[in-house]
Amino acid sequence: MPELRHDAIQKRWVIIASERGRRPDDFPRQEQLAKEGFCPFCPGNESKTPPEIMAVRYDGSRPNTPGWQVRVVPNKYPALRIEGELERKGVGVHDRMNGIGAHEVIIETPRHDLEMADMSVDELQRVLWVCRERLVDLYRDRRFKYVLIFKNHGAAAGASLSHPHTQIIATPVTPLAISEELASAKEHYHVKERCLFCDMITQELESGERIVYAGESFVALAPYASRFPFELFLAPRFHHYSFAEADDGMLRGLALALKDVLSRIKRCLNDPPFNFLVHTVPNVKATPKRSSYWDTIAADFHWHLEIMPRLTRIAGFEWGTGFYINPTAPEEAAKYLREVEL
Amino acid sequence: MPELRHDAIQKRWVIIASERGRRPDDFPRQEQLAKEGFCPFCPGNESKTPPEIMAVRYDGSRPNTPGWQVRVVPNKYPALRIEGELERKGVGVHDRMNGIGAHEVIIETPRHDLEMADMSVDELQRVLWVCRERLVDLYRDRRFKYVLIFKNHGAAAGASLSHPHTQIIATPVTPLAISEELASAKEHYHVKERCLFCDMITQELESGERIVYAGESFVALAPYASRFPFELFLAPRFHHYSFAEADDGMLRGLALALKDVLSRIKRCLNDPPFNFLVHTVPNVKATPKRSSYWDTIAADFHWHLEIMPRLTRIAGFEWGTGFYINPTAPEEAAKYLREVEL
Repeated sequence: MPELRHDAIQKRWVIIASERGRRPDDFPRQEQLAKEGFCPFCPGNESKTPPEIMAVRYDGSRPNTPGWQVRVVPNKYPALRIEGELERKGVGVHDRMNGIGAHEVIIETPRHDLEMADMSVDELQRVLWVCRERLVDLYRDRRFKYVLIFKNHGAAAGASLSHPHTQIIATPVTPLAISEELASAKEHYHVKERCLFCDMITQELESGERIVYAGESFVALAPYASRFPFELFLAPRFHHYSFAEADDGMLRGLALALKDVLSRIKRCLNDPPFNFLVHTVPNVKATPKRSSYWDTIAADFHWHLEIMPRLTRIAGFEWGTGFYINPTAPEEAAKYLREVEL
Repeated sequence: MPELRHDAIQKRWVIIASERGRRPDDFPRQEQLAKEGFCPFCPGNESKTPPEIMAVRYDGSRPNTPGWQVRVVPNKYPALRIEGELERKGVGVHDRMNGIGAHEVIIETPRHDLEMADMSVDELQRVLWVCRERLVDLYRDRRFKYVLIFKNHGAAAGASLSHPHTQIIATPVTPLAISEELASAKEHYHVKERCLFCDMITQELESGERIVYAGESFVALAPYASRFPFELFLAPRFHHYSFAEADDGMLRGLALALKDVLSRIKRCLNDPPFNFLVHTVPNVKATPKRSSYWDTIAADFHWHLEIMPRLTRIAGFEWGTGFYINPTAPEEAAKYLREVEL
C-alpha cells in the first residue's frame, strides 16, 4: 500500500510509493559534464574570472594569481547585481523591484577534479569557513534579506562547470521555502515553547530507522516525508539557529558530517548529480523591527542543509502542484546509505 | 538589469534574468523517447493494460477490444490505490495516511504518434470531454479532496511512453500549490469582491505584451512572474471556477486554445518536452461544512491550465527554495510564440 506522509516543517504531503520500490541500482546513469577542456576556475586562469572577493592563501601570493586554496569571485553571469536601488513598485496585481543582490562563486579547491566527497576534513572545513565568512559579510548589507548557499554537482543538477564550486546568492526577499519553514517553526514554538526541528531530530534519533549519520554535533537523516529518493536533512544535533554564528568547532563537526554523507551518496548511487542548500535564519538586521516576529527567532528556528541527489525526473507534475511522488521509502534510503562501507 | 517579479497568485518572487536572454534556439535539444517497440496503448494490445474504466466507441465494439477513440484505464503502476480506508494517524510531529486515491491514464487516441498539437479540434475536444467526465465521476467519491489532471510529454517531462496520454490522480488531500492559489484568491476577493484571476486577465489583455492567444472564451498568456522560460497560463476569458462544470461549448473553446498554443510551442521550440496541469476547484462535497470557507468559492476561484515547456535544468536550487531564475522574459517568450506561423 502506498503511503501519504505529511512533513511538519514544510507542511506538504508526499506519496511514498514504496511498491515501486526503487533501489540504488534502479536509477539510470545521468549525463556527465566534460572534465576536459579549458577551465576558468583552475590556477593560472585567474584572469578569466572577475577579480576575486576573497581567497585563502598561505603563501603570501598576490590576489588573482595562483597560490590560493579557496577563491571567491563574482559570478560572471550573475542572476542579481550588486549596484543600484531596489525601486519597488506595483504592476497592477503584481509587484516588481530591480534585481539587486549578489551572486558569487566559491571555487572550493585549486584541484580540478577534487570533489567535495573526496576532500580531507581539513579541506572541507576550509570551504565551510569561507561560506560562513561570506554569509556574515553579505548580511552586513541591509538590502539583503536572505543569503542562499547552494551547490549544483553534475549536469542534471544544473552545474555547467565540473571544477568543484559552491554558489552564493544574496536576495532582497526571503525565498518562499524559507518563509514557510520559519512560519511552521514559529507556530510550533508558540504552542509548545520547543523547537520543531529539535523535536523532529529527537524523534528520529529515538527511532533510528531514518538516521544516516549521528556525530557529536551533527545529524543526517532521510526526512520522514522525503520528496525525492535519497534526500537528506543535515542539521546541528543540538539547538542552533544561524549558520552565520557557527563557531569553528561547529564547522569541524559539519565538515565531518558532510564528508561522511557525501561519500556515502557517491558510493551508494554511483556519483550521482546532486544539489545541497543551506537553510539558515534570514538577515534580522534587514528587517524592520515592526513586530515581535524576530524576538523568538533564535529559539524557534534551527539551521540545516538539504541534500538532494537528482535521480528521478518526475518533476513537472511536482512543480505544478507541490505534491511529490517518491519511489524510495526514506527508511530504505537510509538503510542503503548506512550500509555503504567507507 | 535583472528584475525581481512577484506573482500575486502564487505569492512567490522570481528573478527574470533577461540579460541571460535565452531565445528559442538557445535551449539544447532534449533526449527523445523511443517511438518504436511494443506499445501497450496501441489498438490490439488492450489486454496489456488493466481493464478499461471508460472508452469512447462509435462502432459498437466491445470493451477492451479495438474500435475506441479515447480509452481510460487504471495506471498499471498506480501512485495511489482505490481500495481501503485512509487511517489517518500522527507519527510524532508528522502525519500519515494510507495512499488511497485513484491513478488513471487517458489514452488520447488510437494513433501512436498523433500528438495533441497535431490533433483536429474535434479530437482534442473529445479528449477534454473524457477528462471532464472522469473529474465529475471521481468527485462523487467523498474520500477524494482533489483530482489532478496532467500531462507529461517527452522523457525530460517524466513520460515513459510516447503514445499520447494524459494522467489523472485523485488525492485525499489538496496539493499545496492549489491551497496556496485558493488562499490568494480568497484574500483578494475578501477585500475587493472581485476575482484575482479575472483582474489579472483583464490587466494582461489591456497591456497585450504577454498575451499569446485571445479567443472568444479562452486566453493564453505568459505569466508576469513566469518561473520557467515559455511557461503559459491558459484560462477561461470570463469568470468560471470549475472544470467539472465546463459545458461542451467551453470544451470547444479550450480545444481551440490548446490546439493553438501547443502548436506554437511545438514549432517555436522544436517539439520540446512539456507538462501541463489543470488547477480547478477542490471537491467541495469532500469537505466538511464547518466554515463559510466554501461559500464564496464559485466567485473567488478561476480554473486554469499551467503549461510548462521543460527547457532548463536549474531545478535543485529552485526545489529547495521556491525561488526561480528565469532566463527568458515572459514578454519575449510571448512575442516569439505569437510570431509562429501556424
